[in-house]
Amino acid sequence: MTTVPDRLLLGSGPSPVPRRVLDALAQPTIGHLDPAFAELMEATKAKLRQVMRTANDVTLPLSGTGSVGMEAMVVNFVRPGDRVVCGVHGLFGERMADELARNGAEVVRVEGEWGRALDPARLIDALDERTAALFVVHGETSTGVRQPLDGLAAACREVDALLMVDCVTSLAGAPLSIDDEGVDVAFSGTQKCLNCPPGLAPFTASERALERLEEGTCRSWYLDLTLLLGYWGGDGARAYHHTAPINLVYALDAALDLVLEEGLEARWARHLDAHERLLRELEPRGFARLAPEGEQLAPLLCVRVPEGLDEAAARRALLLEHGIEVSGGLGPLAGQVWRIGVMGEGARPEAQERLLAAIDRVL
Amino acid sequence: MTTVPDRLLLGSGPSPVPRRVLDALAQPTIGHLDPAFAELMEATKAKLRQVMRTANDVTLPLSGTGSVGMEAMVVNFVRPGDRVVCGVHGLFGERMADELARNGAEVVRVEGEWGRALDPARLIDALDERTAALFVVHGETSTGVRQPLDGLAAACREVDALLMVDCVTSLAGAPLSIDDEGVDVAFSGTQKCLNCPPGLAPFTASERALERLEEGTCRSWYLDLTLLLGYWGGDGARAYHHTAPINLVYALDAALDLVLEEGLEARWARHLDAHERLLRELEPRGFARLAPEGEQLAPLLCVRVPEGLDEAAARRALLLEHGIEVSGGLGPLAGQVWRIGVMGEGARPEAQERLLAAIDRVL
Repeated sequence: MTTVPDRLLLGSGPSPVPRRVLDALAQPTIGHLDPAFAELMEATKAKLRQVMRTANDVTLPLSGTGSVGMEAMVVNFVRPGDRVVCGVHGLFGERMADELARNGAEVVRVEGEWGRALDPARLIDALDERTAALFVVHGETSTGVRQPLDGLAAACREVDALLMVDCVTSLAGAPLSIDDEGVDVAFSGTQKCLNCPPGLAPFTASERALERLEEGTCRSWYLDLTLLLGYWGGDGARAYHHTAPINLVYALDAALDLVLEEGLEARWARHLDAHERLLRELEPRGFARLAPEGEQLAPLLCVRVPEGLDEAAARRALLLEHGIEVSGGLGPLAGQVWRIGVMGEGARPEAQERLLAAIDRVL
Repeated sequence: MTTVPDRLLLGSGPSPVPRRVLDALAQPTIGHLDPAFAELMEATKAKLRQVMRTANDVTLPLSGTGSVGMEAMVVNFVRPGDRVVCGVHGLFGERMADELARNGAEVVRVEGEWGRALDPARLIDALDERTAALFVVHGETSTGVRQPLDGLAAACREVDALLMVDCVTSLAGAPLSIDDEGVDVAFSGTQKCLNCPPGLAPFTASERALERLEEGTCRSWYLDLTLLLGYWGGDGARAYHHTAPINLVYALDAALDLVLEEGLEARWARHLDAHERLLRELEPRGFARLAPEGEQLAPLLCVRVPEGLDEAAARRALLLEHGIEVSGGLGPLAGQVWRIGVMGEGARPEAQERLLAAIDRVL
């Protein structure tokens, strides 16, 4: 194949992948039933538990990109006819509502402005005794908003509903503790704050959630947790289900090492610092953050572009003339915002100085 | 992460991945909407068409391991209530019957002995005017049998049914021409005769099949072709759907280059030669091929083990003492057979001589 161009990935993901992770990725492929791979699986699961801050036994990378995590959440834990409250204030809430509807759920949308967090009280008010689950997007990649989870777990427990969370863009870049927050099911992606190539979906499910699993009822064979756990479960039996994406697991394992070496608190703080520093530089240049103070998602700075700017042309110039990727707006925000990734290696002064210098030349 | 052990992969897959493919895999990640990646996508699709021998516009790698291809086939082209004839003479036919049932199809099983091909006439007899599709496993990885497709396409067309094929283990290792055989939908995996790490499912669908697609009806959001084609389709628009596993596409592209440089006919012949040569060496050692002559699948030599052999212990010794992986039997063949991969780089005399020398020491 041809050589890929040199890019600094400061968009909505994928984020910059360190050489150590690429080197891990390129280690020789071994078998998915090899004892050496089984050992690695256990190590990777343990590291993932640390990064997700959970003791959930069922914590594993699913074999697909982040969206596979959302689909696995629905096909395993939502049955046709289930009432599910779904927070919708961005593209990924919309996507979840779509997933739920395709799977026959009764979707109760709690909608909010794109660019604002939802008031947890509104989500709680929408719960009732018939509710099977509440879903929120913890880090809305389409708007750069972090959704507070305050009180959601307790309210869900009161009506025996599961709390389900999309933490694709927040994991390892913004404070999140699955167990402390009382999250029952969560999924993420590897290509955001983990700085790993895309292709795996970190996933976790609580004992409360697992009690709802029934063998043979999942509409997806590929994502059926009752089958998957025969392979990924910790009992050493390793029944063949599907062939895991071996090399991507190598890469994830190395990426988790980097996160744990830095420490989660330090990493969260670094992301917030980098976000604020970049915002301070962008504001005098005419950019304004979409999310109000206190609702911002550190790993994704979503800014309105200066008035009159041909933002698509400017992004193209950044990419093709300066080798820097930033992302445009989605849905109602198309043409109005840039989404700038502040993710892992992208949350460092050197990367941001390169971006600012390039912006100054392009604008 | 820890360094992975050195293994010669001569099992049912993954197969040996050449350094050139690993080097491609480890190239820096770029964005899934980068024009450079769009260009690569088009190049990879074109190469995949050549290797699948199809002119189908919709020929692409799906973002998951081979089984995702099977699931995509069902959720896109089979509707609840559809009558589907399913050949079952091994684990992967069983899996398809399971997938179909989960998706509400009326499954008509045409069963055969594990280790034998199905008589195409029996499959044809099972078709009727109500039949929506016929599914067969072209290369049964659980038994090492190649299923003839003779007459199936014409019979399907007569009743307006789709011909659906699993070519996970046959693609690029045994003769298969999607268009000449009249196959409507087919899926494969990357970790067999393509010698690429697992994580993508090459997939193709004919115009006849695509006519059946209806927007908004697919039960899976992740595998909904009407959405996927907005991203993978060739119109240059590249609407975001999910983040493709960028690095795996690099690897697949490089792996397809290797196949096309060798040439498909030469590669098919090499696989058959290597299969026969290995069998000739194994027979005097007490192994006997499960598939009769004429029904063998070149890339997977499935042999009954010598009487009295503790086959699990012997495989373990091959792996741990000699670094060579071969696979055991599945389902009713567990404990009775070895499944030896003869796939790409594993279909070469040097690899097989290493295996035979190790077998002689272990037995």
